[in-house]
Amino acid sequence: MTSYQKLLRVMNTVADLGAASAILGWDQETYMPDGSVSGRANQLSTISSLIHHHMTSDETKQLVSQVQAELSTLSEPEKRIVATFVRDHEQATKLPVELVEEMSHTAALAQDAWKRARAASDFSIFEPMLKKTVDLKRCEAELLGPASHPYDNLLDQYEPGLTVEVITPVFERLRKGTVALLENIHEAQGKVSDAVLYKSYSRDTQLEVARQIIQVLGFDFSTGRVDLSAHPFCTNFGKHDVRLTTRIREQDLRSCLFGLIHEAGHGMYEQGIGSVYERTPAGQGASMGIHESQSLFWENVIARSEDFWMWAFPLLQKKFPEQTNTLTPRDFYRAINKMQPSLNRVESDELTYNLHIIVRFEIERDLIAGVIEVADVPRIWNEKMQTSLGVVPPNDAEGCLQDVHWSFGGIGYFPSYTLGKLYAAMEWNRMQQDIPDVRDQIRAGRFDSILAWLRSNIHVVGRSETPSEIVMRVCGRPLTEEDFLTYVGIKAHDVYEIAKIC
Amino acid sequence: MTSYQKLLRVMNTVADLGAASAILGWDQETYMPDGSVSGRANQLSTISSLIHHHMTSDETKQLVSQVQAELSTLSEPEKRIVATFVRDHEQATKLPVELVEEMSHTAALAQDAWKRARAASDFSIFEPMLKKTVDLKRCEAELLGPASHPYDNLLDQYEPGLTVEVITPVFERLRKGTVALLENIHEAQGKVSDAVLYKSYSRDTQLEVARQIIQVLGFDFSTGRVDLSAHPFCTNFGKHDVRLTTRIREQDLRSCLFGLIHEAGHGMYEQGIGSVYERTPAGQGASMGIHESQSLFWENVIARSEDFWMWAFPLLQKKFPEQTNTLTPRDFYRAINKMQPSLNRVESDELTYNLHIIVRFEIERDLIAGVIEVADVPRIWNEKMQTSLGVVPPNDAEGCLQDVHWSFGGIGYFPSYTLGKLYAAMEWNRMQQDIPDVRDQIRAGRFDSILAWLRSNIHVVGRSETPSEIVMRVCGRPLTEEDFLTYVGIKAHDVYEIAKIC
Repeated sequence: MTSYQKLLRVMNTVADLGAASAILGWDQETYMPDGSVSGRANQLSTISSLIHHHMTSDETKQLVSQVQAELSTLSEPEKRIVATFVRDHEQATKLPVELVEEMSHTAALAQDAWKRARAASDFSIFEPMLKKTVDLKRCEAELLGPASHPYDNLLDQYEPGLTVEVITPVFERLRKGTVALLENIHEAQGKVSDAVLYKSYSRDTQLEVARQIIQVLGFDFSTGRVDLSAHPFCTNFGKHDVRLTTRIREQDLRSCLFGLIHEAGHGMYEQGIGSVYERTPAGQGASMGIHESQSLFWENVIARSEDFWMWAFPLLQKKFPEQTNTLTPRDFYRAINKMQPSLNRVESDELTYNLHIIVRFEIERDLIAGVIEVADVPRIWNEKMQTSLGVVPPNDAEGCLQDVHWSFGGIGYFPSYTLGKLYAAMEWNRMQQDIPDVRDQIRAGRFDSILAWLRSNIHVVGRSETPSEIVMRVCGRPLTEEDFLTYVGIKAHDVYEIAKIC
Repeated sequence: MTSYQKLLRVMNTVADLGAASAILGWDQETYMPDGSVSGRANQLSTISSLIHHHMTSDETKQLVSQVQAELSTLSEPEKRIVATFVRDHEQATKLPVELVEEMSHTAALAQDAWKRARAASDFSIFEPMLKKTVDLKRCEAELLGPASHPYDNLLDQYEPGLTVEVITPVFERLRKGTVALLENIHEAQGKVSDAVLYKSYSRDTQLEVARQIIQVLGFDFSTGRVDLSAHPFCTNFGKHDVRLTTRIREQDLRSCLFGLIHEAGHGMYEQGIGSVYERTPAGQGASMGIHESQSLFWENVIARSEDFWMWAFPLLQKKFPEQTNTLTPRDFYRAINKMQPSLNRVESDELTYNLHIIVRFEIERDLIAGVIEVADVPRIWNEKMQTSLGVVPPNDAEGCLQDVHWSFGGIGYFPSYTLGKLYAAMEWNRMQQDIPDVRDQIRAGRFDSILAWLRSNIHVVGRSETPSEIVMRVCGRPLTEEDFLTYVGIKAHDVYEIAKIC
C-alpha cells in the first residue's frame, strides 16, 4: 500500500465512524425509547473519541507528512481530498480527546434535557446543560488558537474562513435593507390573507403531498427516506443513505410541506456529491452555508415562487379541495409569502427570517465572549425579539427553546442560514443567465435542468472546494447581500402589489 | 487508573462499538432504504475490525496479563467480568483482522442477497454469498484451534463447551421420543381444528393485541420498542434499549402474536441483566441456548398453555369477536397446539419444531465438514424435510431460504433453539416446585412472580456464568431432553385427548 492508500484507509475509518454516529443520532431523534438516553450518550461519546483518536494518532501524523511529501504523485481529486483531511487533522490535533469525549457526552444529555425543557416550556430544565455546553465551547474556541474574536473559531467550523469582522457589515446592511423593505410594505399588510394556511389539513395527506413534491423535485427515495421528529433535520450516512425528517401540524400547512422541501434540498445535495469523494472528508457538503443555500434554494426560490404554484396548486387542490377551491395559484403564492414579524424562525417568512438569525448570532457570540450569562438567555432573547421584530414570546418553548442547535453544541451554526439565503440568491441570479427558460420549466413542473445545474455547479465537488471558491467559480464574485435584497425586494413588492420605491 | 480500570475502559469501548453495530444492523432490517446496502456493509465492517483491534491490541494483551496478576484485589463481579473478557480475548486473538473484516462485510452483502433471493424464491441469487460465508466460517473454525469436529468451534461460539459429540446422543433420543409421540397422536389428528388461526385478522389490531400482551408479561416499553421486519428478531444496545421486531400475516394469527411473545422473552432477559455488568462482556445473555430458553419459555410454556388462554382468550375475543365467538379458551389452546409436520420452522408446533432444527444442524455441520456442497443445499434440504417430516417445500422461499441465520454467518446457531426448548422445560420443572401456585397465577393474568423468578435465577447473572453453571445451579442437573419430552408428552396427550401410552 502507498502512503496515500494507508491514509485513505484512515479516512474511510473516520467516515464510517462518522456515519455510524449519525445513524445513532438519527435513531435518537426518531425511534429511540425515552429511557435509553444515557446508554446512547456513552455510545456516541465512544465513537467520537475513536474518530478523534484516528484523526490525531502518531500513525496518522506520520502518514500526513509522507503523503504531503508525495503530493505530486496524486491525481487532482486525491490532492483535494488530502488538503481537506489535513485541515480537519490540524483542527483535531488542537483538541484533547477528553474534551472531545465530554462534548459528545454532553451533547447527548443536553439534547434530552432540551427536549424535556421544550415539552415543559421551562428553560431551567435546559439551563445547566446549556451552561456546560457554552463552557466547553469557550474552552474549544480558546484551544483552536488565536483569533480576533473567540467566536471566530466556532464560526470557522461551519463556514471556513468567515469571521465576526467579515460577517458584521454584511449583516448590518442586510438588517437595514430588511427594515426598509418592512417599512415599504407595512401599510399594505392588510392586502395579503394567509388564512388558507391555518385551516385543518389531515396529517397523513399533508405528508403524502410533501413526499410527492420532493420526489418530483428530484429527491431519490431509493437511497433516502422520510420520518417524523420534534425538529426537522436531514442526516446522511454516505451519499447512498439520506434521511429526512419533518413534523406535521394539522392546522398549519407550512410546517410539513416547506420543512420537507427544505430538508430535501439538503438531501439532494448529499445525493449529488461526486462518488470519487465517498468515504473521505471531501464527501460532504462544502459548508453549512453552502448546504443551507441548497435547502433554501428549493424551499424559497423554487417552492415559494408563483411559477411553482402555477404547477403545484392544482395538485394541492386535488388533495384538499374543500380548503383551497376558492383560491387561485396567485392567492396561494401571496399567502405563503406574507411578510410580517413572528415568533418562530423555521416558520417565518423570507424577509424577517434573517432578523431571527441576527438575534441568535448576537446571543451566541456574546455567550462565547463571556459578555452575557446563560441564565439571562430567556430575558435577552425576549428583549431582542421585542427590539428587532417587535414581538415577544409568551413562553420559553416558543422563545429561546424553539431550536435544537445549542443542545447539540452547534454554536456558530445559526449564521449559516442567512449565508445560505445570500448564496441562494446569488445562485438564482446566475442560474437565470444559464437557463433562460428556467421559469417556464418551473411552471411546467420540470426540475431536472435545475437539479442538473446545482449538481454540476455545486453538488459534485462536495467539500473539495471551499465555500468562497465555489461562490467565486459559480457566481463570479464573493459573498454579497445585494442579490438577496434585490430578489426579496422584487418579491415583497409583487406579493403586496405595491410599486417599488427603493 | 488501576489496570482493571484501564481494561474496563477497553471493555466499554468494545461494548459501545458492539451496540453501535447492533443499531446499524437493526436499522438495516427495519428502515434502511434498499439502495444503501453497500455503504452499510462498509460501516459494519469498519466497526467490526475496530472491535477486533481493541480486543487484540498489544495494549489489551498487556492489560490482561496485569489484571490477571492482580485478580485477588478484585470483587467477585469484577473477577467474573475479567474471566468473560479473557475468554473472548483468547478467541479473538486467534482470528486475523482481515478475516474478521471480510466476514462482517460479507454478512451485510449476504443479508441483502438473501432478502432478494427470498423475495424471488430463487436460491441461486443467494448461493454465491452463502458459498463465501461457508468458506469463511470453515477458515474461522480451523483458526480457532484443534477440535474433534470442525463444527465444534462454531457451535462453541453460541453454546460454550458444547460439541457434536455431546449434542448427538441428546438429539438422537429427542428425535426418537418425538417420532414416538407423533405416532401416538397420529390417529387423533382429526380431533383438533386450528381453522380459527387462519381467518382474516386486521394487521393493526393483531399488533395492538400482541403489544398489549407482552406489556402485561413484563416487557418494559420505556426502554424498548417494536417494529416490523421480514424476519422477527430482538436486538439490544445495552439493557436500556431493547428492540423487538415482528411480522404480521393477515390470515395467520400466530405469526405476529407468538413471534412477538418469543422476541419479548429475549427482550425481558436483556432488560433483566444485572447493572453491574453493563458495558462489559458479561452484560449479555449467557449463551444463545439460554437466550432461547427465555424466549421459548414465554412463547411456549406460558403462552401456549391452557392456563394462559383462560386469562387471555377473553382479551382476544374482545378484539376479534366475529372470528372467535364460537370458541372456548380450551378450543383455542388446542388449536394453537396442533402438532403436525409443516414447512416453516418459526410457525411449527413445539413437537415437530426440533425436527426442523435437526435438519438445519445436519446441513450446516456437513457444509463445514466439507461433506456436502452449497449448490446442493436446496436438494438436500428438500430430501431431509421429506425423510424427517414427510413434507417437501414447493419453492426455496418456503424451504432453505426461510431463515436469516446463514446470511449473517450464524452457522452453529440453530441448535440453540432446541437447547432452549430443553432448558425451558427444565426451568419450568423447577419453577413449579419454587412457585407452587404458578398455574393459578397464569390463569389470573399475573406474571410478576414468574418474571421475578427468571430475573433472579437466570437474567441477573448475565454472561458471568456459563450455560452449564446456570443450568446446574438452577435445575440441579446437566442438560437433558427428559423434562422436555415429559412436558411435551403431557401436552400432546392433553391436546389430542388421548390416554398416555408411553
